[in-house]
Amino acid sequence: MENKDNIAIKIVWDSFKSNLQRASKLLEELSDEQLALEISPSKNTGHYLLGHLIAVNDNILPLLGLGQSLYSELVEVFIKNADKSGLEKPTISQLRKQWHVVNKLLLEKIELLTYEQLLEKHTSVSNEDFAKEPHRNKLNVVLSRANHLAYHVGQIALLKK
Amino acid sequence: MENKDNIAIKIVWDSFKSNLQRASKLLEELSDEQLALEISPSKNTGHYLLGHLIAVNDNILPLLGLGQSLYSELVEVFIKNADKSGLEKPTISQLRKQWHVVNKLLLEKIELLTYEQLLEKHTSVSNEDFAKEPHRNKLNVVLSRANHLAYHVGQIALLKK
Repeated sequence: MENKDNIAIKIVWDSFKSNLQRASKLLEELSDEQLALEISPSKNTGHYLLGHLIAVNDNILPLLGLGQSLYSELVEVFIKNADKSGLEKPTISQLRKQWHVVNKLLLEKIELLTYEQLLEKHTSVSNEDFAKEPHRNKLNVVLSRANHLAYHVGQIALLKK
Repeated sequence: MENKDNIAIKIVWDSFKSNLQRASKLLEELSDEQLALEISPSKNTGHYLLGHLIAVNDNILPLLGLGQSLYSELVEVFIKNADKSGLEKPTISQLRKQWHVVNKLLLEKIELLTYEQLLEKHTSVSNEDFAKEPHRNKLNVVLSRANHLAYHVGQIALLKK
């Protein structure tokens, strides 16, 4: 928080955290019955979107070099396939637990990164590409996931009465 | 782009621009008839959300000290009141034009701000509060509006077939 660089980084990090809090608050307000519904006729269910958000957030761990994903089996059901794929989904109750586990670990691990480390390249960009495009850093992953979260939270919010 | 500070700021600014582009692309893909529909039964129409996004983005101008809002009359219809308020809305065709005018001006004016200026306080925070909370700067306004945009773009995307 001493220099200007830190302020810009802090803003991005705070934005990610507040989007996560907003999402958690919304999920608590919704019953399992509400989450089982489609956000709009023939569109994704809240159930699918919850699994999707866990799978995407879980993937931040390896992307930032913070360890392996916890629930890599979710990728098949909630990223590679659509809601009505016919693949069996974990229950909403199970996903609610995974949501909290992933996010708690994510917040703890990212908090330990220094500002210097947040400006290092993320793991899916090569050294050569990073030299040319220094904005492809870990902070950028955090920001793009904050946006991704906002996009789907706007949809899940439609399930509120 | 030379130092790290600039990279963090560039990431936020790029995120705002790409969210705007994404929104514009989506709006082009949707017909006026589609935008007139509710995003989900008994929820906001695309028409209302388009007006809402213009009004909120338009308000960035005074907030960053870049001049007056262009269409301050939209605040009453699209921010202070809900979709079914009974207040008359500009047509979708008129709003499409305003969307482009506001965003073009916004991008031009923000591009002229230096990184130093983006880290200055925005106009609705006092000097005293800014001294205590230096993250309440112009860059933070840009980031929070990028998030706001993503939230509603997720909803408007539901109008696609």
